[in-house]
Amino acid sequence: MADLKAKFLNVYSVLKSELLQDPAFEFTDISRQWVERMTDYNVPGGKLNRGLSVIDSYKLLKGEELTEEEIFLASALGWCIEWLQAYFLVLDDIMDNSHTRRGQPCWYKVPKVGMIAANDGVLLRNHIFRILKNHFKDKPYYVDLLDLFNEVEFQTASGQMLDLISSEGENDLSKFSLSLHRRIVQYKTAYYSFYLSVACALLMSGENLEDHVDVKNILVQMGIYFQVQDDYLDCFVDPKILGKIGTDIEDFKCSWLVVKALELSNEEQKKILNENYGKADPEKVAKVKALYKELDLEGEFADYESKSYEKLITSIESHPSKAVQAVLKSFLGKIYKRQK
Amino acid sequence: MADLKAKFLNVYSVLKSELLQDPAFEFTDISRQWVERMTDYNVPGGKLNRGLSVIDSYKLLKGEELTEEEIFLASALGWCIEWLQAYFLVLDDIMDNSHTRRGQPCWYKVPKVGMIAANDGVLLRNHIFRILKNHFKDKPYYVDLLDLFNEVEFQTASGQMLDLISSEGENDLSKFSLSLHRRIVQYKTAYYSFYLSVACALLMSGENLEDHVDVKNILVQMGIYFQVQDDYLDCFVDPKILGKIGTDIEDFKCSWLVVKALELSNEEQKKILNENYGKADPEKVAKVKALYKELDLEGEFADYESKSYEKLITSIESHPSKAVQAVLKSFLGKIYKRQK
Repeated sequence: MADLKAKFLNVYSVLKSELLQDPAFEFTDISRQWVERMTDYNVPGGKLNRGLSVIDSYKLLKGEELTEEEIFLASALGWCIEWLQAYFLVLDDIMDNSHTRRGQPCWYKVPKVGMIAANDGVLLRNHIFRILKNHFKDKPYYVDLLDLFNEVEFQTASGQMLDLISSEGENDLSKFSLSLHRRIVQYKTAYYSFYLSVACALLMSGENLEDHVDVKNILVQMGIYFQVQDDYLDCFVDPKILGKIGTDIEDFKCSWLVVKALELSNEEQKKILNENYGKADPEKVAKVKALYKELDLEGEFADYESKSYEKLITSIESHPSKAVQAVLKSFLGKIYKRQK
Repeated sequence: MADLKAKFLNVYSVLKSELLQDPAFEFTDISRQWVERMTDYNVPGGKLNRGLSVIDSYKLLKGEELTEEEIFLASALGWCIEWLQAYFLVLDDIMDNSHTRRGQPCWYKVPKVGMIAANDGVLLRNHIFRILKNHFKDKPYYVDLLDLFNEVEFQTASGQMLDLISSEGENDLSKFSLSLHRRIVQYKTAYYSFYLSVACALLMSGENLEDHVDVKNILVQMGIYFQVQDDYLDCFVDPKILGKIGTDIEDFKCSWLVVKALELSNEEQKKILNENYGKADPEKVAKVKALYKELDLEGEFADYESKSYEKLITSIESHPSKAVQAVLKSFLGKIYKRQK
């Protein structure tokens, strides 16, 4: 596994070198240095789970060890997902006016970068299609890869829009609902974080994605469950364990907790939410958290978690292919009852 | 011609309706209204020259009247170019901190939009690939269209980067040169403004773009000439005729005029440029303009213009196809000696 990660990181260096020598643009020394620094700063610093899971999934689908060539290609697709993530994070941080990301200042906060970061985000997005062209142009599934990345990018940007326009303007909890929450997380997170890597592995295996709508649906459900966990952990887990300080309450986020609380609240409790949700004041945050305890959202979440798990397992086990089952169970195993 | 423009605008309505009903996303009413307003605000308000020229070029290449179906498809590709332009302008305005565009506030300056505009830019870019998928998925040249739009987007973003990092930091004229100027305008403007529409028309005509590198080179040269005109007009034409107030001197732009002035200046004149270029003070701007007169940049430009024209005509007339010659001459005719 450590070996696989080392190989994966090595592919990053290869892909980056190719991008810095791209014959479709005449780099100056300064612009080549800029792109290298920008890419190193934003692309490889995450947990790399999305990228690595392309290799894992492809191996399970193939049912035997991968050749070096296959590892390289699966890694390249994995890196395309990491590049996509970097592109979204660079732009999201500008839009959210965030300060830090992965333990360092957000790219747009780095001196001399500023709003140039918006164009850097666009460049990161374009790198994906340069990588695909460099390594997959002659594959029979090339056009399917292009369609896949385009569709997932579209869905992610649409989910992001839904999230942005729901929290825009004066804080108004009446806009929030479980249905809105589901749409936001499904589009903003589930497609690119769960479906995309398996879809890449399926295409490499020669599969037609239209034959795997059921796999897509299961992974999207898993992505929604993952994001509900995220919302829960943001509030209920010790920041020392979580590795970050949750601020969903302060930020007026359309979190699963607040939509669940709205659903369970009587008029008086709704009043508490309306008066205290979305404020920086720690006393108000504490009042929201106290209400969450009173409504037993921990119990609600435990209930949601076990029901989601049951449903997912049932769906997975009804899939005709044992190899596909193994891929899906591997994803589920990584996230079920996670503590961070 | 007025008829063609009416047809072209009608295609916009069709494409927009399709996007607002896209089955790949579950719109809420509010998000559908947002996308409609955002698209109407940013896409159709320009001169539409780039978009319309796909239809003109395709007609010249075909050599006879187009069917209604062909007009629709050429218009759809034309609109993809307009969408690409809108995407870049929305993001450029954020990065340049601009205030107005096409006689109205920049999109990010509109109340309640703000930084959501960055994601709206991304959505506009994604619309292109939805349009291509909706109308060209079954065409033999579908994958070539995807590659073309991806490559041109990459080149434009790369040119934009070169422009941004050259004007970033303290004003230092020693960074400017004719070679840097040529690279910026070639990548930032020429590919998407000149090459892209003809390339779309060639693909619709069943041509392989690799057989038309000469056409690409001529259009890129034309695009560079067009941008040099732009730089010239910004300074030397009455704002009433130009329709906008040029501020390249104030903004420390890597304009053809300043790189030409640097080339022609003696040490004393260079000192004047260093002390006065890139300042908002009208007296300093006047000093730069006086130096431009002293160096006879008007004469230099007239010389550049006639030489460029000669070279372009020679290249065009050496092309084996009369139809391609007609396309290229039509482009050149529209820009040669333009006054605005």
